[in-house]
Amino acid sequence: MPAVRIQVINPNTSLAMTETIGAAARAVAAPGTEILAVCPSAGVPSIEGHFDEAIAAVGVLEQIKAGRQQGVDGHVIACFGDPGLLAARELAQGPVVGIAEAAMHMATLVATRFSIVTTLPRTLIIARHLLHQYGFHDRCAALHAIDLPVLALEDGSGLAQEKVRARCIQALKEDGCGAIVLGCGGMADLAQELTRELRVPVIDGVSAAVKMVESLVALGLSTSKHGDLAFPEAKALSGQFQALNPF
Amino acid sequence: MPAVRIQVINPNTSLAMTETIGAAARAVAAPGTEILAVCPSAGVPSIEGHFDEAIAAVGVLEQIKAGRQQGVDGHVIACFGDPGLLAARELAQGPVVGIAEAAMHMATLVATRFSIVTTLPRTLIIARHLLHQYGFHDRCAALHAIDLPVLALEDGSGLAQEKVRARCIQALKEDGCGAIVLGCGGMADLAQELTRELRVPVIDGVSAAVKMVESLVALGLSTSKHGDLAFPEAKALSGQFQALNPF
Amino acid sequence: MPAVRIQVINPNTSLAMTETIGAAARAVAAPGTEILAVCPSAGVPSIEGHFDEAIAAVGVLEQIKAGRQQGVDGHVIACFGDPGLLAARELAQGPVVGIAEAAMHMATLVATRFSIVTTLPRTLIIARHLLHQYGFHDRCAALHAIDLPVLALEDGSGLAQEKVRARCIQALKEDGCGAIVLGCGGMADLAQELTRELRVPVIDGVSAAVKMVESLVALGLSTSKHGDLAFPEAKALSGQFQALNPF
Amino acid sequence: MPAVRIQVINPNTSLAMTETIGAAARAVAAPGTEILAVCPSAGVPSIEGHFDEAIAAVGVLEQIKAGRQQGVDGHVIACFGDPGLLAARELAQGPVVGIAEAAMHMATLVATRFSIVTTLPRTLIIARHLLHQYGFHDRCAALHAIDLPVLALEDGSGLAQEKVRARCIQALKEDGCGAIVLGCGGMADLAQELTRELRVPVIDGVSAAVKMVESLVALGLSTSKHGDLAFPEAKALSGQFQALNPF
Amino acid sequence: MPAVRIQVINPNTSLAMTETIGAAARAVAAPGTEILAVCPSAGVPSIEGHFDEAIAAVGVLEQIKAGRQQGVDGHVIACFGDPGLLAARELAQGPVVGIAEAAMHMATLVATRFSIVTTLPRTLIIARHLLHQYGFHDRCAALHAIDLPVLALEDGSGLAQEKVRARCIQALKEDGCGAIVLGCGGMADLAQELTRELRVPVIDGVSAAVKMVESLVALGLSTSKHGDLAFPEAKALSGQFQALNPF
Amino acid sequence: MPAVRIQVINPNTSLAMTETIGAAARAVAAPGTEILAVCPSAGVPSIEGHFDEAIAAVGVLEQIKAGRQQGVDGHVIACFGDPGLLAARELAQGPVVGIAEAAMHMATLVATRFSIVTTLPRTLIIARHLLHQYGFHDRCAALHAIDLPVLALEDGSGLAQEKVRARCIQALKEDGCGAIVLGCGGMADLAQELTRELRVPVIDGVSAAVKMVESLVALGLSTSKHGDLAFPEAKALSGQFQALNPF
Repeated sequence: MPAVRIQVINPNTSLAMTETIGAAARAVAAPGTEILAVCPSAGVPSIEGHFDEAIAAVGVLEQIKAGRQQGVDGHVIACFGDPGLLAARELAQGPVVGIAEAAMHMATLVATRFSIVTTLPRTLIIARHLLHQYGFHDRCAALHAIDLPVLALEDGSGLAQEKVRARCIQALKEDGCGAIVLGCGGMADLAQELTRELRVPVIDGVSAAVKMVESLVALGLSTSKHGDLAFPEAKALSGQFQALNPF
Repeated sequence: MPAVRIQVINPNTSLAMTETIGAAARAVAAPGTEILAVCPSAGVPSIEGHFDEAIAAVGVLEQIKAGRQQGVDGHVIACFGDPGLLAARELAQGPVVGIAEAAMHMATLVATRFSIVTTLPRTLIIARHLLHQYGFHDRCAALHAIDLPVLALEDGSGLAQEKVRARCIQALKEDGCGAIVLGCGGMADLAQELTRELRVPVIDGVSAAVKMVESLVALGLSTSKHGDLAFPEAKALSGQFQALNPF
Repeated sequence: MPAVRIQVINPNTSLAMTETIGAAARAVAAPGTEILAVCPSAGVPSIEGHFDEAIAAVGVLEQIKAGRQQGVDGHVIACFGDPGLLAARELAQGPVVGIAEAAMHMATLVATRFSIVTTLPRTLIIARHLLHQYGFHDRCAALHAIDLPVLALEDGSGLAQEKVRARCIQALKEDGCGAIVLGCGGMADLAQELTRELRVPVIDGVSAAVKMVESLVALGLSTSKHGDLAFPEAKALSGQFQALNPF
Repeated sequence: MPAVRIQVINPNTSLAMTETIGAAARAVAAPGTEILAVCPSAGVPSIEGHFDEAIAAVGVLEQIKAGRQQGVDGHVIACFGDPGLLAARELAQGPVVGIAEAAMHMATLVATRFSIVTTLPRTLIIARHLLHQYGFHDRCAALHAIDLPVLALEDGSGLAQEKVRARCIQALKEDGCGAIVLGCGGMADLAQELTRELRVPVIDGVSAAVKMVESLVALGLSTSKHGDLAFPEAKALSGQFQALNPF
Repeated sequence: MPAVRIQVINPNTSLAMTETIGAAARAVAAPGTEILAVCPSAGVPSIEGHFDEAIAAVGVLEQIKAGRQQGVDGHVIACFGDPGLLAARELAQGPVVGIAEAAMHMATLVATRFSIVTTLPRTLIIARHLLHQYGFHDRCAALHAIDLPVLALEDGSGLAQEKVRARCIQALKEDGCGAIVLGCGGMADLAQELTRELRVPVIDGVSAAVKMVESLVALGLSTSKHGDLAFPEAKALSGQFQALNPF
Repeated sequence: MPAVRIQVINPNTSLAMTETIGAAARAVAAPGTEILAVCPSAGVPSIEGHFDEAIAAVGVLEQIKAGRQQGVDGHVIACFGDPGLLAARELAQGPVVGIAEAAMHMATLVATRFSIVTTLPRTLIIARHLLHQYGFHDRCAALHAIDLPVLALEDGSGLAQEKVRARCIQALKEDGCGAIVLGCGGMADLAQELTRELRVPVIDGVSAAVKMVESLVALGLSTSKHGDLAFPEAKALSGQFQALNPF
């Protein structure tokens, strides 16, 4: 029986991407860690804006509740916008880590400044807001979009992957950055290869978040229930949301 | 037939609060403005944390879609955390204004610094994050909570109202602020009376947001569809979210 | 008799520009609003730097005093540097809104980021300082100057107008912004046409400020006299400034 | 004949304060420096708000012009709000230094954090804005007001001086600061004695600014005329402002 | 043979504290991790200011060089000021993590805001600077000092430990924080017990940093050698510093 | 006998650069000021990164101690990274000023924004951090590196000097800055000539810092010993650091 069980939640409904993410998580998990890669049964097939995020956040909460019932030790939210992060922390017993925050935290430990490479230009504003919210605004040298939708990463053509690679190379030449953060859960499988090829840290949030959760669990640190991340107030949820009732 | 129709969305499911909010909106609406006060058919009865907000955001989006189908000219999100604001802006054709941002904007026009009085202490972090996000962090002198839940404002006892009043008076004495922002949609009916009694601007976001939307409509300014608030990408929503499909 | 009287102060002495500004104000004023477009009897013919602003601020104060004596309900300072804004708020009884702040506030409600297009490059620093002061620094994608003086907007050639238009188009292509703020009171007549042509919000501060003052008046919100915007301390003004005596 | 002539401008019209300020300036001036202590012929007898500042700024500009005609080498603006500073820099040939900025700069060189002690509470907002504008916001531990008007410093009773001293002592005990900045030109004569008594740097802006101007002159550094502090655009000033015409 | 070897550098020369730190590191190290707890052979017995830090930084560099020669996989700098962190990153091949940054990063993952409890008041400024540098300034609710020197933690009396405990309890009551960061490497042994007793995350940087380094190593992420953390330029070090020569 | 003795510490061991720096200091020193230009007996021949800075900081402290024993009135740290500044302030009795801070302070007095021209690209991060630390981040228009090592300034070819000049010219054309800060102590001899040629303030930190220290001494202002810059705690330094013992 494994010592630590980590639930990795892909907030979109793409099974292919859930698999990519699960594989990336398992590739770095410690020997004693079991990865449960899941996605919501309903929602959006990919997340490329605030509307998509708002829908995905509910799916994240459903999975958090399910994970808690299964007694998992911690949770990863595997979409670069960290949708529903604070709501998930209220609902969860164990630690919850988003892949954007995990990747950004890690990047600040190995470089003075990093650049971000993501998918559609319209998602840049989400990364920008997170940089401010997490305090890393001055650590980000530049943000780049390859101008392809998220699911292009799963179309098997390799085009999106090649565009990511090209953008990383350009960023290293022009931005004055020392590391690259990959801005999409669907890029999780690219990080190690690019790190080797480009000889700089190219950071994927999925694997970073798994190690963060493992670390928090090992340290006995859980989401604080003192103050503003306490369990949600007890109240009657109605309609489709009844299933979310935390009690 | 009215010239301008504004949909005022109470993101929680409390009908009493929806009425309070609707009345406050109508009290300040221009002669040619019709107010449609609505709330989601399903969700949370009050919003006091990130978990509640995540659920409420979906209800907000459903109402935005309904309002758009009814051809309303603009939308107000009438909960002090402005839940789902950017998602709603993606989905909407017309302008969308949150009551927290509206109140804060107005406060900066009549005082150098303002204080906020809200309900439960755990909601303070939400106000704090909005202050940062909107750029008003240095304009807020202090944040206060009366330590009663949102629905205490609707229990008819007047206790919550009295606590709000007492906190406003204390804030004016101690904070070095020139105005008060009321931090809950359920306090909408208190602003005018307190403004008169305390002889400083006491600002309710519901009425502030209605005037903001009226202003934007009069100026012909709508949510920009150029760039990151463009309509959501076309994609197949599944399960309970199919109804949200914007197309 | 009109319900609301708003004094729109052009801080420079150009009568042509006062007319442009007055017309823009009237074009958006509510049915019950009367616009009093005025300018100082003495001062600078255009405002293109801090020196000009310091002189214009005194003219603004003289007009505020006059407006107060006429019992106007609120005031607009119609120069993009918002000269004398806080001094005017001390002197005024009703609300005072600057066109730079009004335009910037409005812009943040319809776009995540906006760009500014103004006249001479040397005025950019004034806009830059206001962005910081108002908390909108991170919301501004870029600042542009057409490199023509303010009064070129009144020379009838249309050259300045064409340059503004070209800069707006370029900004939308390159800046990653969703809206444009026009950075000069003399551009007030361009906003609606450009909004229609470019299909993004192009925001003029004069009309924005008129709606803001109307809104504040409708809400019963006036400049706070509690604390640092209280009426000026009673003291003997001497020389040319005696006329400014507020008492 | 002296090598360096520095014009010290008291922006209010109090002759007593002009003398206090002049004496403080002369007490620290280098052997080769001549101090010209002046004040406007018309304006406000003391400066305790934005309204007073706006009036005083014009007086500052008149004196800058006069000083320039007399060929002075540099200028000090001796009021803690630094009224008209950027306008004065446009108009001047030589360097212009405000006493608030000078004191704050000096304080950051001798302590990690400083506190400010000033006169009326309503002037605190001015100091607060300058701290932001100059980038010293995080260096200021606390702001204090003795709640007496500026001219109380000149009433001969010593009450204001005693209150300043008491506040400095309290600040050192409670604020976690290492130095005190005196927040009024009228306190210029207190700094040296308090520095000796309290054994921490108590900094007066008048003397600090004189040394700053001496330093800039010695280094051959003058206000940059490249860009946004260039001489004002040539234009016809009208009425009472004609005398300000820089050309 | 262990898979991962982490060098934990106590920057002061106290052997007792080196042992405390080493024990805390080993208590959380993964099965495959070997901890090498070391301290400089020369330097300061405790670190309580910038002077102490400057000396300690050289000792850190000597140990980094030694560790690199021994082929360790990563390094921890186990003093809450993170002395010499960026210099160490230049010199190191593998990742280097400071205990202040590690603790602060972890705290932001389990609470919206944290408080810091440290030793002497004079060290607060160091924590304050780090909060700004790392971007966590707005995440820190308050900083507290128990007003005992670092080595009081090693005197066996338990007094310092009791004071830390009391301060944590007070902070949780008054600060509005959800977690506590212990601000000294010498407090490493207190975290787990306090976490259990106070039922909130009480975070020790030593154990946090060990998990961070383990995570970085597992992810194949090393200090970026592209740009400003590249190995030091080749140059002849002289005198006592010759031993530091990295080549 | 001179009235004021200022110790100018070149933190690297290059005698040629120490001479350049000493000459620049003497060129601006007041008649009554004696300059003692020194450098550490051991350390790094030039400073181009954090590793070099950490070593140089110890040399700075040794010189501060020596200067204090010689009874100098103040100290200048003549390397653009201001290495060891706060440690030096703890150790010193008189004021200590770094050349980066001095140059930046001066620049803000004569221009709204300045650009920095320095040597190797890898030193840019140090300037960037100082801008944040000192609060001048928003005042810096751009940072430039000529991509030559520090010692190229002493090779007699004039190549580095020519590159500095070219970069200054380009910066003035493109950055929107009004002044240039030279980002290396070894450029001290270029400032006056470039100021004359380019007709904008080109600021060298060495001369700026000398005037700052002269000013502080004249004002009777010394490093505050109240709070966090108090003399180092008394403790037994060991090994090579025994000589640094301040007592």
